[in-house]
Amino acid sequence: MIYQRVALIGLGLIASSMAHAMRANGLAGEIVGYAKSPETRAVAKELFCDRVTESAAEAVRGADLVVLAVPVGVMGEIAAEIGQHLAPGATVTDVGSVKQAVVDAVTPHLPAGVHFIPGHPMAGTEYSGPRSGFATLFQNRWWLLTPPEGCDPEALARLRQLIEGMGAKVDLLDVGHHDLVVAVVSHVPHAIAYTMVGVADHMRRVSQSEVIKYSAAGFRDFTRIAASDPVMWRDVFLTNKDAVLDILGRFAEELFVLQRAIRMGDGEHLHAYFTRTRAIRRGIIEAGQGLACAWRPRPGRRTSTARPVRW
Amino acid sequence: MIYQRVALIGLGLIASSMAHAMRANGLAGEIVGYAKSPETRAVAKELFCDRVTESAAEAVRGADLVVLAVPVGVMGEIAAEIGQHLAPGATVTDVGSVKQAVVDAVTPHLPAGVHFIPGHPMAGTEYSGPRSGFATLFQNRWWLLTPPEGCDPEALARLRQLIEGMGAKVDLLDVGHHDLVVAVVSHVPHAIAYTMVGVADHMRRVSQSEVIKYSAAGFRDFTRIAASDPVMWRDVFLTNKDAVLDILGRFAEELFVLQRAIRMGDGEHLHAYFTRTRAIRRGIIEAGQGLACAWRPRPGRRTSTARPVRW
Repeated sequence: MIYQRVALIGLGLIASSMAHAMRANGLAGEIVGYAKSPETRAVAKELFCDRVTESAAEAVRGADLVVLAVPVGVMGEIAAEIGQHLAPGATVTDVGSVKQAVVDAVTPHLPAGVHFIPGHPMAGTEYSGPRSGFATLFQNRWWLLTPPEGCDPEALARLRQLIEGMGAKVDLLDVGHHDLVVAVVSHVPHAIAYTMVGVADHMRRVSQSEVIKYSAAGFRDFTRIAASDPVMWRDVFLTNKDAVLDILGRFAEELFVLQRAIRMGDGEHLHAYFTRTRAIRRGIIEAGQGLACAWRPRPGRRTSTARPVRW
Repeated sequence: MIYQRVALIGLGLIASSMAHAMRANGLAGEIVGYAKSPETRAVAKELFCDRVTESAAEAVRGADLVVLAVPVGVMGEIAAEIGQHLAPGATVTDVGSVKQAVVDAVTPHLPAGVHFIPGHPMAGTEYSGPRSGFATLFQNRWWLLTPPEGCDPEALARLRQLIEGMGAKVDLLDVGHHDLVVAVVSHVPHAIAYTMVGVADHMRRVSQSEVIKYSAAGFRDFTRIAASDPVMWRDVFLTNKDAVLDILGRFAEELFVLQRAIRMGDGEHLHAYFTRTRAIRRGIIEAGQGLACAWRPRPGRRTSTARPVRW
């Protein structure tokens, strides 16, 4: 057991998965939960919480770990509610996909003697809510922490032990750098997927059911991405605005260069570009990231488990 | 056995998978192969062809089915080479991802009495070449046919039987409509994935290895798509130019609207948009397309086999 009492504020996919993982691995003495909706609390009590409370303040009382698992846009409000009720020496962490905005919103509300260690589990599914969690969500996934300067090493080591106990890999990053990297590898790809699915919706009215009927491979991946939680993604784009707009701008420029090459019929440009992106994919497989998921690329002959990617 | 002798012209992923599937299901008497490269021919002879030839003309002699499985850009050249050597009554099909350009390039070279039935198997992997094929590639995938007006019903029924024998589902489409639908569900998503991977490559130089290291979920799907065969994709964009430019234009407009909402901090717009795209995803799952692949979305509680899609 790493923490005597863990308080989960917000009881969606991430919090419920944490509860299942902590239970499965005996990492927490008591798991207390709070969510705004009584229905959510009832489900949590039934499925994975030892106890639920009717306020966030009540949930954090006596907890040695408090996890803020609410949308990024309400982190500050929750921090204001719980600040004065936190136990001295407690650790507070969050699971938001953006870090600078959370640090700015939460830090002012925390009393001295409480350790705030912002975190970002890079794991999820297209499903949300208290019924969507499962114990192995974090298995082999990165869980990034952005501890502030002067962070207590013991508090950090303990949180790290909990996270690794749930099967994740921990890395420490600077807050600003975190937000830029995730803009590239997560936020902008999501913005793009949302957009492409929106375009297909125009076309659906033109071409009836074909777009949906034949939506395998490329496009299906996009629709899966675009099915993620709308509130979470709204807050991500509102709070990581600068990095997202920077990367979106680069993307638009790059797309126009490709579009121009298609319009001009510049086969050499297209071939060279596609060859380069293929090499980048190889780099990712060599870095081992391709192996961290259920689907494994294998060298040589494909088997029926290879996931199709082009038509 | 549906055809006595099948000639495969071009021996990459699709042709080699067809050969494996025809052998596994006893669909062809003899499988003859031709490819430009002697190395490819040697691999094909070893792995899946009964016989390989040193010219396309030689390969099609006496074949009752000829499959053009070369990049779309060389279909016309190959058709010119084989036209005079085709057996009377033979069926010719192709496996190109674009149909109007193939029809225009191939039809003029075929003698009367030969049945040309253009096709498009909507299946593939990120791998290419004669070693990449496997017998189950087409299992439960769509294989679209765009038969010309007045197409011989018997020839069509026989080709359909072969394709269904390899495990695929057949649908008939008008040529132009086919090219528009695949622009939406395949060609433009690929262009976008290529572009995003290119942008990440800029950033890799800025942020060192993090972009590759943390590239799970959203972005990893993009890199997988962007690893497809460069020659094939060059030809797709050159030959389905009009439909691709139309959809890319719509995409750019739609993306700018989203980008503006992010810049303006318009949370209502973002939330409404993301809610709508989520509903489209649900529509796709209900249409059953989500079930046709190795990964199955399941209702209710996730298990460890659910593929992560957001961070």
